[in-house]
Amino acid sequence: MTHKQQYSLHTDLAVEAKEMYVEGKEKSKQQIDGIDEQYKQYKGIDVTRTMINAQAAKKIQKEPGCYITIHSEDLNQGDTTEQHHIENVLAKEIEWLIHEHNITEEAVGLIVGLGNLRVTPDALGPKTSEKILVTNHLFTLEDYDVTQGYRPVSTIAPGVMGTTGMETMEIIQGIVKEHEPDFLIAIDALRARAVSRLNETIQLSDTGIHPGSGIGNKRKGLSEDTLGIPVFAIGVPTVVDAVTITNDAIENVLRHLGKAWKDQDRPSQSLAPSGFHFGKSKLSEEDKPERKEQQSLLGIFGTLTHEEKQAFINEVLTPLGANLIVTPKNVDAFMDDMSDILANGLNQALHANITPDNSNAYTK
Amino acid sequence: MTHKQQYSLHTDLAVEAKEMYVEGKEKSKQQIDGIDEQYKQYKGIDVTRTMINAQAAKKIQKEPGCYITIHSEDLNQGDTTEQHHIENVLAKEIEWLIHEHNITEEAVGLIVGLGNLRVTPDALGPKTSEKILVTNHLFTLEDYDVTQGYRPVSTIAPGVMGTTGMETMEIIQGIVKEHEPDFLIAIDALRARAVSRLNETIQLSDTGIHPGSGIGNKRKGLSEDTLGIPVFAIGVPTVVDAVTITNDAIENVLRHLGKAWKDQDRPSQSLAPSGFHFGKSKLSEEDKPERKEQQSLLGIFGTLTHEEKQAFINEVLTPLGANLIVTPKNVDAFMDDMSDILANGLNQALHANITPDNSNAYTK
Amino acid sequence: MTHKQQYSLHTDLAVEAKEMYVEGKEKSKQQIDGIDEQYKQYKGIDVTRTMINAQAAKKIQKEPGCYITIHSEDLNQGDTTEQHHIENVLAKEIEWLIHEHNITEEAVGLIVGLGNLRVTPDALGPKTSEKILVTNHLFTLEDYDVTQGYRPVSTIAPGVMGTTGMETMEIIQGIVKEHEPDFLIAIDALRARAVSRLNETIQLSDTGIHPGSGIGNKRKGLSEDTLGIPVFAIGVPTVVDAVTITNDAIENVLRHLGKAWKDQDRPSQSLAPSGFHFGKSKLSEEDKPERKEQQSLLGIFGTLTHEEKQAFINEVLTPLGANLIVTPKNVDAFMDDMSDILANGLNQALHANITPDNSNAYTK
Amino acid sequence: MTHKQQYSLHTDLAVEAKEMYVEGKEKSKQQIDGIDEQYKQYKGIDVTRTMINAQAAKKIQKEPGCYITIHSEDLNQGDTTEQHHIENVLAKEIEWLIHEHNITEEAVGLIVGLGNLRVTPDALGPKTSEKILVTNHLFTLEDYDVTQGYRPVSTIAPGVMGTTGMETMEIIQGIVKEHEPDFLIAIDALRARAVSRLNETIQLSDTGIHPGSGIGNKRKGLSEDTLGIPVFAIGVPTVVDAVTITNDAIENVLRHLGKAWKDQDRPSQSLAPSGFHFGKSKLSEEDKPERKEQQSLLGIFGTLTHEEKQAFINEVLTPLGANLIVTPKNVDAFMDDMSDILANGLNQALHANITPDNSNAYTK
Repeated sequence: MTHKQQYSLHTDLAVEAKEMYVEGKEKSKQQIDGIDEQYKQYKGIDVTRTMINAQAAKKIQKEPGCYITIHSEDLNQGDTTEQHHIENVLAKEIEWLIHEHNITEEAVGLIVGLGNLRVTPDALGPKTSEKILVTNHLFTLEDYDVTQGYRPVSTIAPGVMGTTGMETMEIIQGIVKEHEPDFLIAIDALRARAVSRLNETIQLSDTGIHPGSGIGNKRKGLSEDTLGIPVFAIGVPTVVDAVTITNDAIENVLRHLGKAWKDQDRPSQSLAPSGFHFGKSKLSEEDKPERKEQQSLLGIFGTLTHEEKQAFINEVLTPLGANLIVTPKNVDAFMDDMSDILANGLNQALHANITPDNSNAYTK
Repeated sequence: MTHKQQYSLHTDLAVEAKEMYVEGKEKSKQQIDGIDEQYKQYKGIDVTRTMINAQAAKKIQKEPGCYITIHSEDLNQGDTTEQHHIENVLAKEIEWLIHEHNITEEAVGLIVGLGNLRVTPDALGPKTSEKILVTNHLFTLEDYDVTQGYRPVSTIAPGVMGTTGMETMEIIQGIVKEHEPDFLIAIDALRARAVSRLNETIQLSDTGIHPGSGIGNKRKGLSEDTLGIPVFAIGVPTVVDAVTITNDAIENVLRHLGKAWKDQDRPSQSLAPSGFHFGKSKLSEEDKPERKEQQSLLGIFGTLTHEEKQAFINEVLTPLGANLIVTPKNVDAFMDDMSDILANGLNQALHANITPDNSNAYTK
Repeated sequence: MTHKQQYSLHTDLAVEAKEMYVEGKEKSKQQIDGIDEQYKQYKGIDVTRTMINAQAAKKIQKEPGCYITIHSEDLNQGDTTEQHHIENVLAKEIEWLIHEHNITEEAVGLIVGLGNLRVTPDALGPKTSEKILVTNHLFTLEDYDVTQGYRPVSTIAPGVMGTTGMETMEIIQGIVKEHEPDFLIAIDALRARAVSRLNETIQLSDTGIHPGSGIGNKRKGLSEDTLGIPVFAIGVPTVVDAVTITNDAIENVLRHLGKAWKDQDRPSQSLAPSGFHFGKSKLSEEDKPERKEQQSLLGIFGTLTHEEKQAFINEVLTPLGANLIVTPKNVDAFMDDMSDILANGLNQALHANITPDNSNAYTK
Repeated sequence: MTHKQQYSLHTDLAVEAKEMYVEGKEKSKQQIDGIDEQYKQYKGIDVTRTMINAQAAKKIQKEPGCYITIHSEDLNQGDTTEQHHIENVLAKEIEWLIHEHNITEEAVGLIVGLGNLRVTPDALGPKTSEKILVTNHLFTLEDYDVTQGYRPVSTIAPGVMGTTGMETMEIIQGIVKEHEPDFLIAIDALRARAVSRLNETIQLSDTGIHPGSGIGNKRKGLSEDTLGIPVFAIGVPTVVDAVTITNDAIENVLRHLGKAWKDQDRPSQSLAPSGFHFGKSKLSEEDKPERKEQQSLLGIFGTLTHEEKQAFINEVLTPLGANLIVTPKNVDAFMDDMSDILANGLNQALHANITPDNSNAYTK
């Protein structure tokens, strides 16, 4: 069971790619040349801006560029007030990112909703597309007075290859050549590589969308290289596989046991009423026991790194047809909420006239 | 009230355009040079093939080409056996029409579902598109063995300008250039100019789709001229306006009164139990009273031709905002059935392996 | 054509029933003993409260009780600001009506959404039911602290007989006996008897729902007599038949001609640029020409009263199977908006804590 | 980590309850007094009839009665031919079961679709209910000639407590008292306790539905005790939790390692090209290594029984809020197919005139 061969676990999230790369490395070596991370927090919403240069990009197997991760446990709680905060943070980050690319206030934007409307966990793109405020056609009508403060915006949900028979890239390529937008924003549902990111993370990037990304079969990429205009991507992890669920659960088992081990002597422990929690309990990487104890607890299996375990479980489950790809039971409500958040965030970011105070009226 | 000025009432159906043109003309003059009509009937399904040459096309304000009208009162009765008959007739006519244009069995077809999925009476195109058997992508996969008897078929439902912000023509143009299909079939919901055609008629043509057609705002046309490949169109009238409903009702009132007038002396009448009908009663153009009697019955209004009345009622209702566009109450069930019929008919016509016996399995 | 026999045209709206009764009567006789009407207007929203006693009820063929009609052309314009005003007016009227019946703030309410979710024009009840804030179950959970300011509310959409196989009355009867609510509010889509009321009117009443009402086949009534608790009804006309459309159009033709006749001498007319309108033009009952002129314009047909024409057109169209029941093309959007308005209005009226400022958050 | 305390893991499937009970017991002791199992197989479809008497029922914590499990990997493969076979097997089993309870061909049946239409993995009941052939109302219409060969059938989808505010039991109780059916069949989505049963198993029983069953909060049971008529239940596991996924994965890891251990000497192994599989590979209980080896492989954790591991993982994940309940990504297609299968099976079983040859026409 010396399972050391390289096993490539693709992730769509840059923060995960980086974490996977540094895993097992000493703290002092976790800083990677060419990766610059900035971190902010607004009322329980974590925002990480990660800049990756070409050299570092190769190491962590992601495209070079800027990745912004917005993380909040409130994303999937159905709380409209919290969701409104997230919308506003998202709007600010989109605005900042397109501004960095010198997109003017008059530039024509095309919003592409990738995925399959009839497969709920893959419907984020099409559902968001339906809620986007489209204005482009109004600018071409002579007798229509478009109030200042709006830019021309179009949107399309091209479907997936299994339902159209065409490469999605082919469809988008054709539309871009004919319609000639100045920039493109693609929205897609992703596969999570950590249960904790599922339905809690939005990733925004300026690197486009690349083969193997997403949960469907979108094949050829959408990027500035292929389309000739800046291509931004917004992705939300909405599905996860059995391998990841299992590996994360084992990780938690280890942390739980490690913590119990360490807490044995602490006297304070005995004062707390059993089973008494303030909110959800938390376990962290620090709670994990030492390697030796891991082996005692989990045997040879316990000696593998997180990534090795993932590779190994994958090797067992996949041939059995048991590596199920799943989505949380409340997927319908989450997709409704999430497409509201993305559409509101985009509408605010794209049109000067749309603000946190009136954004809801545009998606209703 | 000498309302004689020309009033253009556009119709998408060639049979209606021709009827409007010959209305009021003597029987002997109802034959138009350059229009050739063939008529067939299969078990209650009427099929009319109308060939219109360039000269005649101008007279009746339609594009020159071939128009096939399939009419059956069973189309909207929800009877699956009858609908299956109609599918088979439709399949035969599509096959014949594309064969006339030398489309081979290997030629790549693109099916375009026009209209708005979220507006039920306009959703015929998108709903049919969802049920089309797509095969094109299978031909490009190396390790996939496509059984002989299928052609490459793709499909797209591009949405409408109000929801995408783009001209539908622009989207289709782009996709055609990139994807390079050999022929295109566009499906669209139409506005009926006679209540009797609503939800009872399918029109098939080889003339493409032209500005002002359809019930939405599709603007620029889809045709061999603009796209460079043969463009067939399948249209079904699913909405009608208040002007047409009113004019048709007045026509029926006139026929009813004319018939009552003529029947007054007939002794047989008294033998039939009052209110006893064998099925729906029927009134025909022949039942209409003479002009003079029409005036007595309906006053000055009665002296107008059918088309003049339509124009006049339109002139009254439209400024009042009262020319409602409506659809039958059972629109949801009709759209489900009709999109099944169109998809089954298309699947049969496009793939040699799909036959009346197995077509249902492909749309389920 | 002396078509004078009695022809019963049922209407669900009390205001229409009264209008039909007084039609053709002299102004001085249009006041009916036992009917008391109060009229208010808020920013383009007309509210009429009509109290009908037992004696008057028989004359106009409606149940005795209180009927409130809220009418606004903005109901179907998709304008969220106007719709919010209508919600607030509706909430106030519901509050007033249930207060008149001594319903306390703690009384348990059951909201019943009648109709068929799968037939869009008949889906108003089920769609509203889905947006109602339900609280009843929270009051029964011991460890759940329901904030003061809410009452127990439940809701059910029982379906229609064609889809359940059961009388709707049977289902509701059973639930009421078991659940024991203190009052019931039923929501239903109605058939309009005037195009001008279609999608522009909400009727609220305390008389329950009676056989023949609604557009489906709900058969036995829901009322205090049958259920033993106060039964309120909210109805919105969402469909209309071809007979009504035709008769209303003929009415408008007569008014148009009458107005043209009268305007012939007016010099001011010539000053207005042709085709120049400030908003929609309006025609009123006063514009109709005298009887003699009506006959000249519309022949013998023109001599019939409005109701007689309706009966006659019905007699012609119905045996032909041509009395189509239709709904406006934008039925999907209207149903979405209307169910929002009704649910917001109900939520506000039923819970002290829900106000115009926060009502949207409850139906999102 | 001597985690031996009793941990109750409720399962809705009788076969699982029995397996859990005998787990760890010697082969000879796996036979339980009072449980009689019959096993049949039709073309890849496994059918198990399990009769449980009162005494045995207590041991395995299920209601006494008859449970029929239909299991097929083809259930979720979208293959219409296979699904049709399963329908026919299901129909035969339903027929047998209701016949065992002396339900006559004229007896009135009420089909109850439990669950929430708006939560896709919980929508099996409502979706099936929509496809049931309802006939009850036809028997009450005087002028309607119901062809012999049909029984009166009604159906209702009462919703869930979170959307109606009422106990589902209360609603059904009320309807049963008023409508007086002779027997009731309830359809519900279940939570699987083994990944291998998810979307591959249909359980049919004559024991009704009991508190804690199902994935929603249906609370009080539906049974002959509470309703006074025979209550049959059809359940399909459509969701699973992270604990079960993890435990099943660990089980597979152990089996995989055990098999590898045993295969080390087998020469045949080296002949097979690496990674070459004929179909999905299979691992079975027999592949698991001995206890001692399990400890070496998985440490102390490896010494726990399957059920103890499940309890322990649950104890770790639940307080972290990490015991996600999930459903496969293709949940939409599965629910469409599964509700077709259940409705076709029920329609065939309930009406003598509906046969495998014509059943599809009734659900279309």
